[in-house]
Amino acid sequence: MPARHIAPATGRLGILTPGLGAVASTFIAGVLAARKGLMPPIGSLSQMAHIRLGTRDEQRNPLIREFVPLASLDDLVFGGWDPITTTALEAARTAGVLRGEDLAPLASELEAIVPMDAVFDRRWVSRLEGVRVKPLSSKREQAQALIDDIARFKAEQACDRLVMVWCGSTEAYQEPSAVHASVAAFAQGLEDDDPNISPSQIYAWAALQSGVPFANGAPNLTLDLPCMIELAQTCGVPIAGKDFKTGQTWMKTLLAPGIKARMLGLRGWYSTNILGNRDGEVLDAPENFKSKEVSKLGVLDAILQPSVYPDLYGQIDHVVRINYYPPRGDNKEGWDNIDIFGWLGYPMQIKVDFLCRDSILAAPIVLDLALFLDLAARAGSGGVQEWLSFYLKAPQAAGRTPAEHDLFIQQTKLKNTLREWMGELPVTHSEAG
Amino acid sequence: MPARHIAPATGRLGILTPGLGAVASTFIAGVLAARKGLMPPIGSLSQMAHIRLGTRDEQRNPLIREFVPLASLDDLVFGGWDPITTTALEAARTAGVLRGEDLAPLASELEAIVPMDAVFDRRWVSRLEGVRVKPLSSKREQAQALIDDIARFKAEQACDRLVMVWCGSTEAYQEPSAVHASVAAFAQGLEDDDPNISPSQIYAWAALQSGVPFANGAPNLTLDLPCMIELAQTCGVPIAGKDFKTGQTWMKTLLAPGIKARMLGLRGWYSTNILGNRDGEVLDAPENFKSKEVSKLGVLDAILQPSVYPDLYGQIDHVVRINYYPPRGDNKEGWDNIDIFGWLGYPMQIKVDFLCRDSILAAPIVLDLALFLDLAARAGSGGVQEWLSFYLKAPQAAGRTPAEHDLFIQQTKLKNTLREWMGELPVTHSEAG
Amino acid sequence: MPARHIAPATGRLGILTPGLGAVASTFIAGVLAARKGLMPPIGSLSQMAHIRLGTRDEQRNPLIREFVPLASLDDLVFGGWDPITTTALEAARTAGVLRGEDLAPLASELEAIVPMDAVFDRRWVSRLEGVRVKPLSSKREQAQALIDDIARFKAEQACDRLVMVWCGSTEAYQEPSAVHASVAAFAQGLEDDDPNISPSQIYAWAALQSGVPFANGAPNLTLDLPCMIELAQTCGVPIAGKDFKTGQTWMKTLLAPGIKARMLGLRGWYSTNILGNRDGEVLDAPENFKSKEVSKLGVLDAILQPSVYPDLYGQIDHVVRINYYPPRGDNKEGWDNIDIFGWLGYPMQIKVDFLCRDSILAAPIVLDLALFLDLAARAGSGGVQEWLSFYLKAPQAAGRTPAEHDLFIQQTKLKNTLREWMGELPVTHSEAG
Amino acid sequence: MPARHIAPATGRLGILTPGLGAVASTFIAGVLAARKGLMPPIGSLSQMAHIRLGTRDEQRNPLIREFVPLASLDDLVFGGWDPITTTALEAARTAGVLRGEDLAPLASELEAIVPMDAVFDRRWVSRLEGVRVKPLSSKREQAQALIDDIARFKAEQACDRLVMVWCGSTEAYQEPSAVHASVAAFAQGLEDDDPNISPSQIYAWAALQSGVPFANGAPNLTLDLPCMIELAQTCGVPIAGKDFKTGQTWMKTLLAPGIKARMLGLRGWYSTNILGNRDGEVLDAPENFKSKEVSKLGVLDAILQPSVYPDLYGQIDHVVRINYYPPRGDNKEGWDNIDIFGWLGYPMQIKVDFLCRDSILAAPIVLDLALFLDLAARAGSGGVQEWLSFYLKAPQAAGRTPAEHDLFIQQTKLKNTLREWMGELPVTHSEAG
Repeated sequence: MPARHIAPATGRLGILTPGLGAVASTFIAGVLAARKGLMPPIGSLSQMAHIRLGTRDEQRNPLIREFVPLASLDDLVFGGWDPITTTALEAARTAGVLRGEDLAPLASELEAIVPMDAVFDRRWVSRLEGVRVKPLSSKREQAQALIDDIARFKAEQACDRLVMVWCGSTEAYQEPSAVHASVAAFAQGLEDDDPNISPSQIYAWAALQSGVPFANGAPNLTLDLPCMIELAQTCGVPIAGKDFKTGQTWMKTLLAPGIKARMLGLRGWYSTNILGNRDGEVLDAPENFKSKEVSKLGVLDAILQPSVYPDLYGQIDHVVRINYYPPRGDNKEGWDNIDIFGWLGYPMQIKVDFLCRDSILAAPIVLDLALFLDLAARAGSGGVQEWLSFYLKAPQAAGRTPAEHDLFIQQTKLKNTLREWMGELPVTHSEAG
Repeated sequence: MPARHIAPATGRLGILTPGLGAVASTFIAGVLAARKGLMPPIGSLSQMAHIRLGTRDEQRNPLIREFVPLASLDDLVFGGWDPITTTALEAARTAGVLRGEDLAPLASELEAIVPMDAVFDRRWVSRLEGVRVKPLSSKREQAQALIDDIARFKAEQACDRLVMVWCGSTEAYQEPSAVHASVAAFAQGLEDDDPNISPSQIYAWAALQSGVPFANGAPNLTLDLPCMIELAQTCGVPIAGKDFKTGQTWMKTLLAPGIKARMLGLRGWYSTNILGNRDGEVLDAPENFKSKEVSKLGVLDAILQPSVYPDLYGQIDHVVRINYYPPRGDNKEGWDNIDIFGWLGYPMQIKVDFLCRDSILAAPIVLDLALFLDLAARAGSGGVQEWLSFYLKAPQAAGRTPAEHDLFIQQTKLKNTLREWMGELPVTHSEAG
Repeated sequence: MPARHIAPATGRLGILTPGLGAVASTFIAGVLAARKGLMPPIGSLSQMAHIRLGTRDEQRNPLIREFVPLASLDDLVFGGWDPITTTALEAARTAGVLRGEDLAPLASELEAIVPMDAVFDRRWVSRLEGVRVKPLSSKREQAQALIDDIARFKAEQACDRLVMVWCGSTEAYQEPSAVHASVAAFAQGLEDDDPNISPSQIYAWAALQSGVPFANGAPNLTLDLPCMIELAQTCGVPIAGKDFKTGQTWMKTLLAPGIKARMLGLRGWYSTNILGNRDGEVLDAPENFKSKEVSKLGVLDAILQPSVYPDLYGQIDHVVRINYYPPRGDNKEGWDNIDIFGWLGYPMQIKVDFLCRDSILAAPIVLDLALFLDLAARAGSGGVQEWLSFYLKAPQAAGRTPAEHDLFIQQTKLKNTLREWMGELPVTHSEAG
Repeated sequence: MPARHIAPATGRLGILTPGLGAVASTFIAGVLAARKGLMPPIGSLSQMAHIRLGTRDEQRNPLIREFVPLASLDDLVFGGWDPITTTALEAARTAGVLRGEDLAPLASELEAIVPMDAVFDRRWVSRLEGVRVKPLSSKREQAQALIDDIARFKAEQACDRLVMVWCGSTEAYQEPSAVHASVAAFAQGLEDDDPNISPSQIYAWAALQSGVPFANGAPNLTLDLPCMIELAQTCGVPIAGKDFKTGQTWMKTLLAPGIKARMLGLRGWYSTNILGNRDGEVLDAPENFKSKEVSKLGVLDAILQPSVYPDLYGQIDHVVRINYYPPRGDNKEGWDNIDIFGWLGYPMQIKVDFLCRDSILAAPIVLDLALFLDLAARAGSGGVQEWLSFYLKAPQAAGRTPAEHDLFIQQTKLKNTLREWMGELPVTHSEAG
């Protein structure tokens, strides 16, 4: 199998995050710590995982980062926009994710990262008050300002390449509308200040217009729009959305395939979350929760195929709740109750209590998406990167077949895509291979 | 890819279970109910699951049982041995797994299934008192009596083929010894009444000598012995062991791969079980618990590869406890506490409470192992069937590479083996396939 | 201490339940089973509990029902109203609380209990559709019809005395209004068809006007109204409200006093419930949930006294959620997460998962409230019976001091009231007593 | 009611702890922090709780420490013995209970507390290796050395009074023997180096001989011996044992009374603990676990009275397990599964997961026991202080009636004893009071 041509990862790679709060500051802090050798970048597939090549007997099992030409952590540069944060250090302290003693050795570097003023509109995030916001009311001007920011950052930081990863808040729910139907319609919508254009869309537009790959870490309707897919394909820029698959949904896409693997039936799945950070506060608003809910609810049907298995998965009560509960801080807790049934229809229950940490789980995903999107760009793979569905709650499909949600199929897809690009055979786990 | 030659599944298939207690009676009841159309055989991959063939676009997705030539449920005949049970109906009632109303329509058929007197030795299962036991003290005579039983059953029930699935108790822990080193040594050991030969080994010996495939549902040292592997290979008889992967270990081999997929670290895993059935009573004896413990503890290392990932999995406290707790009856409850760590080393906890039903989860595994072993026999595949590791807590490896414990790799291996045997391409989930 | 005069419990006592669904049918079935000696009335203090008299050394410890002159189970007669149910048997079957085999020996008696047509108004319970409803649109006529029903039932069933216990649905939330300010205002409101008069208020009015004690098992604003308290006092009729203290709140009023006993701080309490019965469906409507939420939220402050203990209880995030989740049926599940802190402010967490059964917990409360209200009536104790707060989520106070919520103080209050009425000394648990 | 004469709390009170590890160092740190006004002494009844006097209408509700003449925190002096610890600061750092930032302001004071060499014998605590141990092999000499230590400490620290609270390890299980039958026998046993005399007994002996009140925080057989009770009574020295009631048993004595209050049945209670501190390591030895198990198992019967309530509590499977699990450190986790049954015998389950902190819960108990024992001494109350059962897993009874385990009765007993001593009426919660 011939390998693809992939341009080498020379020079510096700038990672720009719209939203420089808990997630982005944790991400940056962890990369800085890894660079200093203080702590390995745990949770990052691109940095920590090995990949098996050939048959089991061959014993070829390199690190992914030694197998594919990824940008090195030492070559990363960080920037972003935020309507509230003054520096990455202040963001990290406010978020309270990391202990003071862990921030101390990174403080000066974090303090030097000052986000640019944000494109922000309270109509989409009613619970936050933006104070560091661009004083531009026209959407066309906002888009242009971001394009200028990107160019300036690249020049000032002497970057060879850039990627953008949305780490901002969940916006209020919306359906696609006429303004999203094509690149031309969207461009006109910017001129007309179309109310259906949200800030996250302006960021994505600016990124793609600048040839910068874009990943969407929130459930916002940012990339799942004909205009954005068209633009990404036209410009040959890789995109990947949406919504980082962290705590509860990660668990769900891990348990549901296991239940299905054993052909056990599912009667109901009740998921509740309590969290007390800025994200929890934003999601306490019903219109923002709806965006998240839709993103979270799709998972089960896609995995369980109720139309193929009506006896097992034809009648599922799937309930998802998120509650703002300040005592938790960033330490999100997800409680799932899963009602399954087996042989002769007998019911059983699985209860999962996940005491997780939102930003700790999200941070390595930011890193991996950034590095893999940059790889895709150098490999000439524009448009939707379905092989990155592994990281996303509501992944975009590249073709007509719906995207996969099963974490293990997603993982296989990711690894076999890397193997394919590098000219290696896929692993099949059959007797022969 | 050329298909294997597989002989058709003509005539009746007898399924013999040493041990006709909760698991075997639940298994038989469910097959009878499925035959009558009362309830589909939920939990059985062989009966319920579809298998994708070719690329996603081809939309070929038949039922496994329509894809490979399995014996039909209508052609199954049931028999077994038990030191206590008088009939399968009485066993089902004693076990209390199934409600009276579910047993009622099956009662006469279950009552007609009368187990043969068992080869039983309290030295190996101190908590049970056998009353329906062969009055033979010599191991050679015991083996011969079982061989005779097998032949008589086959003739009387007009079976075309037989398979045997161990559904009996966990025996006291033992290490392999000289008597297990070869077929010749074991044959001599039977003559000499070697104390290291346990009842389950005599059953396996009798089965293999009779050309009957054997699956081992308990953690006993039955098949994992040079003598048995040699015998199976010599006779061309398929074998698969050991220990049905039901509640907690099923969950563990589903969660551990998910943790590893995301390169999250693991610091400890504490598993406790409470159960109140005969199995719980047997495992309350330390020497029997040890067999189970060893079987359960191996799982994590095999999946997590601490030597490859010392930073993530190099120091794991893995504790497994089983407690006899009569209020639960057959409704086993497993509680797991999992201590993971992520980005910057921050700890998180996952707690899983699994209110399961032991026999309900085991029954479809008995069915699948029986049908797939019979398939393997007709396909000319003798010896260890590593592709059936999907069903087993401590699967045997066919070659030198250790067996896989990851439930999802096991599932892929099973399905790709079936595809291979039928001349289809393996599924790789890469962009291309 | 001189005992009160209490009239003897001669003749038959009729227990009337507005609402003859899951709770009332389970209550009746259990009393019938206890009468037949099939099963003791578990969960009933009045029937099962002993009460210590005098000092520990005296060893006097009679059953409550042998200590105070309660009506006997054999003298109870059952009746009620329901907008849906045709008979108590049909109600029990629909509810699915009790197994068929448990209902069988009681079937004919349950079938003979036919509820009267209900006073029902969908404005207050939007999720239910009443079909067995009195065809009267005027509230005055509805009240009179209920008064007539009561009198007819008493005569036909040859009852000596009656009590009424609300076992119907939760009504939409309301605040008291002018029509509730006095007996006169309420009487006029009935004439005027005041929209603020809810069905449950009409039942209570009819009961009190008929001299029938009334207990309120739902969080409805039925008795907590000046008009009702005035009427109960004027007529000398005992009343007790509101909202049966069953699963989660029972647990809360048991844990919160324990936390306070140890002077541990409380930072937050998150309670979520999943249930799938008619009650769950009704509470899925936000206006009905609000009634329940208010009833459930008051508990903590009353117990923990944040004004007395600002350091410990001055900042509590208390969240209560109820979700309709059909797979559970009547088997309600409550999950509580409790964030406490101790020495040096260090945080700890308590998580309680309560797999309970709503009607099973409520049924004995119906019995006890009925028998104790009847006792109070015979003891000449009219108005609010604060000593019955033990059974209620949001108990009414008899005087100006707020009612107690601590389950253990409530229990002491109940028992010491009985002791007092019977001329015994209270138990103090001091060294001397 | 006339008040007792209680001598005033003048001068300094020395608190001596045999065992200066996690619990004692946390206790001392918290008192120091409270003195400095850094953090109130949360969890301490003696410091934080109010006590109601008279009827509810009187509104008299003083702090306990303002109601009874307790020693002030400012007058406390700390000392102890430990076979491993060098200073209280080093102990706190090793234990890892408190964060560095919380220890910093207390460091110099903690460092100045240097434990005396211990009386230690590995026969009783096999998992620990003592290095700071008195080089005396004769038990008589050991006792004398401790008596000398006590006298020296009192003089050097200018203490007015002393109390001793055992904060050391759990010793191996033992039954009382002849040597414990009387003061005389024990004195002779010291001479004879009787092997049945454990180190904790030598400490208690030395304390009582020195007129120092003694509380026993471990499940050791220290005070529950005729010789010790005789000695305490003879010398008029207050004693209180045994085993601090912290996490799981605290919860148990809170839930069990709640279950009983409602007359719900109990079929089983399964308790498992995971902990990773020195205590967990010691309890990993079966002979030491047995001491703890016996202490923990007694609780339920005492509360539930199976002989009075055979239908409800006549058949309980009560299982207690403790597992050493290093990932937890001092953060003990207790998981309880409680199988109850209600109306018509229907089963329900309560599951409690308690993520607690062992030393954080124990520390305020050390403080309260010390202060209340000192109060008792000044009040002339020698011998067993049953009113302190509130703090203890296996409380000693003062008379023939067994000690109470119900947390709420214990609390009432404690408060009513204080009221009685101060000449106030007990609170009864009856209508009248």
